[in-house]
Amino acid sequence: MTMESTIQEIARNARLASRTLAVASTAKKNQVLQDLARRLTDLTPEIQAENRKDLEAAREKGLSAAMLDRLTISDATIAAMIQGLNEVTALEDPVGTITKTWTRPNGLEISKKRIPLGVIAMIYESRPNVTVDAAALCLKAGNSAILRGGSEAFFSNTILARIIGDALENAELSRESVQVLPVKDREAITLLLQQEAFIDLVIPRGGEALIRFVVKHSTIPVLKHYKGVCHVYVDHACDIDKAVSICINSKTQRPGVCNAMETLLVHKTMAPAFLPRMAEAFTQAGVEMRGCPQTLEMVPNAILADDNDWEAEYLDLIVAIRVVDTMDQAMDHIAAFGSDHTDVILTSDKINADTFVNSVSSSMVGVNVSTRFNDGGELGLGAEIGISTSKLHAFGPMGLEELTATKFVVLGKGQTRL
Amino acid sequence: MTMESTIQEIARNARLASRTLAVASTAKKNQVLQDLARRLTDLTPEIQAENRKDLEAAREKGLSAAMLDRLTISDATIAAMIQGLNEVTALEDPVGTITKTWTRPNGLEISKKRIPLGVIAMIYESRPNVTVDAAALCLKAGNSAILRGGSEAFFSNTILARIIGDALENAELSRESVQVLPVKDREAITLLLQQEAFIDLVIPRGGEALIRFVVKHSTIPVLKHYKGVCHVYVDHACDIDKAVSICINSKTQRPGVCNAMETLLVHKTMAPAFLPRMAEAFTQAGVEMRGCPQTLEMVPNAILADDNDWEAEYLDLIVAIRVVDTMDQAMDHIAAFGSDHTDVILTSDKINADTFVNSVSSSMVGVNVSTRFNDGGELGLGAEIGISTSKLHAFGPMGLEELTATKFVVLGKGQTRL
Repeated sequence: MTMESTIQEIARNARLASRTLAVASTAKKNQVLQDLARRLTDLTPEIQAENRKDLEAAREKGLSAAMLDRLTISDATIAAMIQGLNEVTALEDPVGTITKTWTRPNGLEISKKRIPLGVIAMIYESRPNVTVDAAALCLKAGNSAILRGGSEAFFSNTILARIIGDALENAELSRESVQVLPVKDREAITLLLQQEAFIDLVIPRGGEALIRFVVKHSTIPVLKHYKGVCHVYVDHACDIDKAVSICINSKTQRPGVCNAMETLLVHKTMAPAFLPRMAEAFTQAGVEMRGCPQTLEMVPNAILADDNDWEAEYLDLIVAIRVVDTMDQAMDHIAAFGSDHTDVILTSDKINADTFVNSVSSSMVGVNVSTRFNDGGELGLGAEIGISTSKLHAFGPMGLEELTATKFVVLGKGQTRL
Repeated sequence: MTMESTIQEIARNARLASRTLAVASTAKKNQVLQDLARRLTDLTPEIQAENRKDLEAAREKGLSAAMLDRLTISDATIAAMIQGLNEVTALEDPVGTITKTWTRPNGLEISKKRIPLGVIAMIYESRPNVTVDAAALCLKAGNSAILRGGSEAFFSNTILARIIGDALENAELSRESVQVLPVKDREAITLLLQQEAFIDLVIPRGGEALIRFVVKHSTIPVLKHYKGVCHVYVDHACDIDKAVSICINSKTQRPGVCNAMETLLVHKTMAPAFLPRMAEAFTQAGVEMRGCPQTLEMVPNAILADDNDWEAEYLDLIVAIRVVDTMDQAMDHIAAFGSDHTDVILTSDKINADTFVNSVSSSMVGVNVSTRFNDGGELGLGAEIGISTSKLHAFGPMGLEELTATKFVVLGKGQTRL
């Protein structure tokens, strides 16, 4: 078989399996998740043996210690996978929910009913635990999944796929409900992205280059965010203690993630009181500051920011700081340099809070809170499969509900159109 | 300026205009729509003069009478545009609606708030009235629009754009809230489809070739349907009179549209009583029948269908007919050849109706109704901007609400993430 026919076969089988999954009961789907959790415990030694093959190859290729760490399936990694499976089991099944009903003047009874999307392809670079997490979320929402993890995790993902398949088969569901692409080639991704006849959604997770590659080559709808350039705007009036605490949390609680603050905007009347205290806290936390000229007047240990800093997603202990004359200027800055991800105002001015909330069109707009709350778990959606900054379908964290669609169900008594 | 910088400039200006539109009041948006309606009345002679230029060019190019008819802006066309504007004025403004609120254990108050998508590009082949209809719907939902109609309607669309711009300016809104691409080149479309930094959604409307072109070249999300291969399945038990009437309505009420029936599936126990009567009605209505061998036994004037007939979107007075052994076989046929658009079961068997509704994943699934009801107006959504058969974002007719997204608004009192 050519690679093209292999990939098409995988996609076609996923579509076939999705028809059964779409009508599978919640009990059956939960049974698979719980069975899978048991198998991961029982088969930990086998999983770790396969994982060691990946680790050895990675060491030979000279991957960094951080990369090796991400690749390792430790006992703690297994425990986290199992906890994830338990959490997804506990989530409410969105499939079959009626979201709205109404009756037309001609007597048609109309409802919108939640259904699975069908087949979801995930393309990711990161840890092998994504394989189990993504499979669980897709499955619970009644979708087939085609998973393509990083080639450096090939052996780990292959055994995880086999175990997931065993759990599916044990519940009399098709093994092809969850498939891991059995080829390492990048060409396989390009071919997969052309299977729009069989695949409903692609979710890429990883660096901006991977995501741009997927968007460029896909004829299938893609949910993604390129990057998170998140802003905190400190308004003309606010509680300085709280502002410092929120900024430290937004920047340093986990600097390597997409909802960490990258740029701090400060109103000029607040800057003289706020910035020196903020700078002290940043310095203590080991945060490098890159500021506009006005910032540098108040923060001598900041270095001068250049144009690149305003659009940088540092993912590191670095922050860009700009003093603005008005809230409008802050919002213009966010519109020009932001990424529609997460933007927050810190203010005690109720009118400004409302204006900011109404005018800034990011997936999460916050008032007096940390940017770090833009997360499926923190917002109360349960587990998340990713965050979208394109406004289509889902805007922000995507939970189970975002892995479904609604169809129109129309019940009649023989009505025809006039 | 190069074409590339022209197109980028248009997209950038649309984005800028969208920020003002996003916070424009309902009253102001309605004022523009009503002002536009008055201007269309007052300027009918000028519009028709420009339209005549398009018509003359079209005649020289030898376009068909049907094409010339679609291109003509008659007094009735103007009246229909004005009626459309009045209908959109009357629709509820979705922007600003809170769709859901909840409070987290840490006191965060979370809501989902409806916002415009931002900038919408429409690419269409058909009549110039789409220019006014699409502009009105985008505007009412707070979105900027970039419109690219068929090159054969260039002069008509250009004057309509100027009049729309005048109505916007009169309400102190940017003319660039609605722009018509001022170039005829197809290259302009390709360039437009790369402006994902400024454009949030592309809606192509027209033939399958145009839509495939847009999907292939776009890095921006696309809402579309390629075609409507709609099925009616006549079950083992049903009211034959009603079934004949629904099938005639589904096939002939307007055969050239996407929600017309293309394939009729009939359960084998119902076929002997139903098919001869159905065939008589089809024959009277001038419908050509292409059937499976079993159909031909009962309908002597049908011709033998080949494989192409099962996936054909005839858009004409032709119907494909197949006798099936079971409802499962009918549903397998729909899964194999359908287009996820509209599929209907005619039955008096409540259990079969439920199974069909649950198992068939089309944008509209109907019981004992005509396929022709899959339409924004008929379902009660108000005007529609198109129909989507990809399940992402919108599945089925897209009304005003489908031209919006929801963002998370998070109100706190200084909370940080633990």
